[in-house]
Amino acid sequence: MKTFNFLILISAALVIGLTSCNNQGQKSSGALTANAAERTYIPPGEYDEFYGFLSGGFSGQLSVYGIPSGRLLKVIPVFSQDPEKAYGYNEETKPMLNTTHGFIPWDDTHHPDISQTNGELDGRWVFMNGNNTPRVARIDLETFETAEIIELPNSAGNHSSAFVTENTEYVIAGTRFGIPIPQKDMPIADRKGNFGASFSFLSVDQDNGEMDLSFQIRVPGFDYDLAHPGRGKSHGWYFVTTYNTEEAHTLLEVNASQNDKDFIAAINWKKAEEYIENGDFTTEATEYAHNIYDEHTHTATSTIKKEVRVLDARELPGLVYFLPTPKSPHGCDVDPTGEYIVGNGKLSADLTVHSFSKMLDAIENEKFDGEAYGIPILNFEDVLGGTVVQPGLGPLHTEFDNNGNAYTTFFISSEVVKWKVGTWEILDRKPTYYSVGHLSIPGGNSQKPWGKYMVAMNKITKDRYLPTGPEMNHSAQLYDITGDKMELLLDFPTIGEPHYASMIPADMIMSKSKKIYKLAENEHPHATTNDGDVRIERDGNNVHIYMTMIRSHLNPDNIEGIKVGDKVYFHITNLEQDFDVPHGFAMMGANNSELLIMPGQTETMVWEPKKVGIWPFYCTDFCSALHQEMQGLIRVSPADSDVELSWSLGE
Amino acid sequence: MKTFNFLILISAALVIGLTSCNNQGQKSSGALTANAAERTYIPPGEYDEFYGFLSGGFSGQLSVYGIPSGRLLKVIPVFSQDPEKAYGYNEETKPMLNTTHGFIPWDDTHHPDISQTNGELDGRWVFMNGNNTPRVARIDLETFETAEIIELPNSAGNHSSAFVTENTEYVIAGTRFGIPIPQKDMPIADRKGNFGASFSFLSVDQDNGEMDLSFQIRVPGFDYDLAHPGRGKSHGWYFVTTYNTEEAHTLLEVNASQNDKDFIAAINWKKAEEYIENGDFTTEATEYAHNIYDEHTHTATSTIKKEVRVLDARELPGLVYFLPTPKSPHGCDVDPTGEYIVGNGKLSADLTVHSFSKMLDAIENEKFDGEAYGIPILNFEDVLGGTVVQPGLGPLHTEFDNNGNAYTTFFISSEVVKWKVGTWEILDRKPTYYSVGHLSIPGGNSQKPWGKYMVAMNKITKDRYLPTGPEMNHSAQLYDITGDKMELLLDFPTIGEPHYASMIPADMIMSKSKKIYKLAENEHPHATTNDGDVRIERDGNNVHIYMTMIRSHLNPDNIEGIKVGDKVYFHITNLEQDFDVPHGFAMMGANNSELLIMPGQTETMVWEPKKVGIWPFYCTDFCSALHQEMQGLIRVSPADSDVELSWSLGE
Repeated sequence: MKTFNFLILISAALVIGLTSCNNQGQKSSGALTANAAERTYIPPGEYDEFYGFLSGGFSGQLSVYGIPSGRLLKVIPVFSQDPEKAYGYNEETKPMLNTTHGFIPWDDTHHPDISQTNGELDGRWVFMNGNNTPRVARIDLETFETAEIIELPNSAGNHSSAFVTENTEYVIAGTRFGIPIPQKDMPIADRKGNFGASFSFLSVDQDNGEMDLSFQIRVPGFDYDLAHPGRGKSHGWYFVTTYNTEEAHTLLEVNASQNDKDFIAAINWKKAEEYIENGDFTTEATEYAHNIYDEHTHTATSTIKKEVRVLDARELPGLVYFLPTPKSPHGCDVDPTGEYIVGNGKLSADLTVHSFSKMLDAIENEKFDGEAYGIPILNFEDVLGGTVVQPGLGPLHTEFDNNGNAYTTFFISSEVVKWKVGTWEILDRKPTYYSVGHLSIPGGNSQKPWGKYMVAMNKITKDRYLPTGPEMNHSAQLYDITGDKMELLLDFPTIGEPHYASMIPADMIMSKSKKIYKLAENEHPHATTNDGDVRIERDGNNVHIYMTMIRSHLNPDNIEGIKVGDKVYFHITNLEQDFDVPHGFAMMGANNSELLIMPGQTETMVWEPKKVGIWPFYCTDFCSALHQEMQGLIRVSPADSDVELSWSLGE
Repeated sequence: MKTFNFLILISAALVIGLTSCNNQGQKSSGALTANAAERTYIPPGEYDEFYGFLSGGFSGQLSVYGIPSGRLLKVIPVFSQDPEKAYGYNEETKPMLNTTHGFIPWDDTHHPDISQTNGELDGRWVFMNGNNTPRVARIDLETFETAEIIELPNSAGNHSSAFVTENTEYVIAGTRFGIPIPQKDMPIADRKGNFGASFSFLSVDQDNGEMDLSFQIRVPGFDYDLAHPGRGKSHGWYFVTTYNTEEAHTLLEVNASQNDKDFIAAINWKKAEEYIENGDFTTEATEYAHNIYDEHTHTATSTIKKEVRVLDARELPGLVYFLPTPKSPHGCDVDPTGEYIVGNGKLSADLTVHSFSKMLDAIENEKFDGEAYGIPILNFEDVLGGTVVQPGLGPLHTEFDNNGNAYTTFFISSEVVKWKVGTWEILDRKPTYYSVGHLSIPGGNSQKPWGKYMVAMNKITKDRYLPTGPEMNHSAQLYDITGDKMELLLDFPTIGEPHYASMIPADMIMSKSKKIYKLAENEHPHATTNDGDVRIERDGNNVHIYMTMIRSHLNPDNIEGIKVGDKVYFHITNLEQDFDVPHGFAMMGANNSELLIMPGQTETMVWEPKKVGIWPFYCTDFCSALHQEMQGLIRVSPADSDVELSWSLGE
């Protein structure tokens, strides 16, 4: 049975770890430093070797870094409003944040995963989970914009998510919290045995990336944590950790830490496909939003879908097996061969590695140790592939290089430990500053890792940078892993709280990066692609202004006939067709963000003027030598005014 | 008279400049590179030498960078909503974004300026303008949080702003656009002679930094661009460029580029103080919001103020003089001695420098060349201090080092030019990549520059980094300016569009940086500073949950008795008293952002549940080994349910 020695250990380690912060204030020098400096320095105008896509955690966004420089290349808005880019503020992108709970301006993103072909990263899309109000997003790696968000019904907390299978057949999204399915009004204390949980299989259109909620697998109402699809020999399976098999409903720090072993659930999704094909599913009524941004209309639509096909693993044999795994495991990681499944038992002294071959054998020979809610529990010893003995305290996550080595993060002992897959010997350990969560190696969760760099994403920053008040940015650390020993090269601060990252060689993406939106392909219903079509139309209290922008004027720049009480739609098209010539648009007093419009793109801002007078608008992005002159005026008259609509430029 | 040769020149230069982008894709090496690498490399755990506060431009925020590393240490939310930090989403900070136009989620920030004592940076506060809906913010450099925002009446576009006088007596905020004052419904074409403009003098309480709109100076309805207070011998004056003395109302790129010379307005604010003291002002009815964040209650309040004292420079002699300045000048910069005022005429072939001493003499001897709206125009030759002849194309902004040198940015010729103050000779020029806007030298707009580094903030990025689709982050470049020649060290991408920056030695700030909010000093009206006070109170449909958080639980974590139609207030106090142990809070389905609560702080989230069921909440900031267990459940019953309010932890 579990004891609380570990909790005491944790407390002690935290105190020790966090009081050992260094306080160096001066720059050191010497050959070693010079060497690290050169290896992380990208001279002006030259390029990083890898793109790093780091989740924003509680920022809700996806951050793009250059590696090894650690430079922040872009923050891509995904689940949260971004007033800088008008994401979630303009009419075109508001539907992206629609859910069955209504418009939600934020989420908590954890695990970006790059699409794969034949088990190797292919650089087409990044998929990422929204943890709080369960959703999965797809980011397009030609535009570096969020192209799609799909809500997940029958799910709560969407943490064991969103990971791609080896040909991106599916993005698999697992729940975190057990909940009543379907939802109902019931006492919380009756949780045990009465909650359920869901794994959503989102099929991916190989042409355009579009997701479809193909089916869900219903599992017992434990809490689920992290997951990875099988690869290579284990392709067709999905592995996911559980951490509250106790089904506790209160004070989980104690009550969900009772069982000596929780489980890794092994889900046979090829078997699930058979069941679906044979019609052995139930179709349940439900509701979820499916939001798609159309690159040609520059506009998102949100559709509420009404049903889902469900396979219940508690009833359908062969769909799910439980692998006992010590103890409240966090990360669930599969090595590049697909043979080994690492359970990072965060309260366990050892690191448990399951063998996929042994698992198949145990299933075939029914080496069971009971069952849970009808799902067979495999015998621990019969599936055990190996154990990394006492590697550190609080393991969370493991990735792999291309030489058969694994790298595991340890939160409590604040280190990364390198060990040999198969021999389980520990090869190296390096401290992290402080309390590392996840790590990332380019391709490190695929069949083809590029084992050059490893980035550790730390949870506690304290004194690593110049202080910025009570709040410090989270910190990442870059290690060179080409040698026998890991070598710390660089600290760099990050946006939000990166929980996970997916990194890829730059040359796999950069050549196809889109530079402009072609005006000739602009199908926005309110586009104005030539100055002759500039106009203003009144429809009751709704006024539609069809405006263009080009260096260095807005057309029209004089507008009269707007009245207090109107709802004014600025539909603005950027006529530029040169790379990196966006224009911005701001309207004084608007209860809205700016617009930031890329070349060839159309965006719409709504403004409801409240005050009579003459009010300015202007371009917000310094676009040319006469940018400051790129401004205009709108006359707002009283609601009962008879000033006629008129507009002009240069008259 | 003006001709359009310059416009043609601009077009040509743009085409040439932008097609000369380099396309290096490989890392170069060699001694020079190694040298630059070492000089910008901050080894893990060591600190940058300077803080750089870069405006976010169209992000609306203030970015804090370490210099020379270029690492982004923090983004401080100022004028825009930030779903990551709940700024503008939680109940405490929503009032910060209130204006007389209502709640506004965004603005366009340009010019951060650090407070000064005796003309030297003192590191107490940063002031920064909101350009679109005119406001000035104060950021506290102990907490690195926005402490105050004040709206500016009778103003439109707030660009020539916000700059501090040499003892931070005032923050001076100038309008950009001429508008009707007071606002009225009138034809735009009647602009000329019928618009006005305002300069707002915000006095600063030297104890707590609080701003007060002391008075406004009314000036002709030109467009105003950039400004600087006098310093040293010119302390008591304020200088600001105009760029539309034509008073054109349409196609300004042509119509505001007609006059051969525009003006720098010299405003004598010591004289203004005399007028105020003598009662020679009018008190005008107006409206503006004044928003203050109280660090003890952790809560902002917004007060609408109703009047302003006005001095009309068109009627009061000696208040304002015009210095003719070629041509559509942008930056207006004063050298450390206070003697020279640089007008960066963006369409001028030369750089015009006025002499403060000559200006005083010209005023005394009435060397006037006519007047504009009753304001004397000084004779150009009589105030001219010197000319930097043909230094480059499209000068925008000048700062200074501590060796008598000036550094001017040239947008069109895309370079920074170093020249000697007094001899006007050009000492060096270095290209920037591409099309530089402003630059920053630590203390470079004060009496005490630290002339070690210069950061150029470029407007066009194109191929400087790995591509990220049509949108590229703006780019900054770091130069070493300790030698005779400037030396480019580093490119680093930035947030939004930095228009201006204020940099300061790190040791002037870091020791006073606040680490936690003391629980004992928490005066939030809904704080719960010990677990005994945890409770839930119902008041009609309003439900107030008084919750605490500490590693690793939320108290309570089981809540029943909430009903559909309720408005639920989570008042949550983080009981931690250790540095860098924030907790986050997310509620599934809430139409709101998370809360991110610093140690000792209380924040409030509103949630209006719409669906019956059991819904999870959890901590969003990985705080401890058992962070994943830091979760709870809320039962939501139908509106007519008789389930009683109850709550618990561990029962």
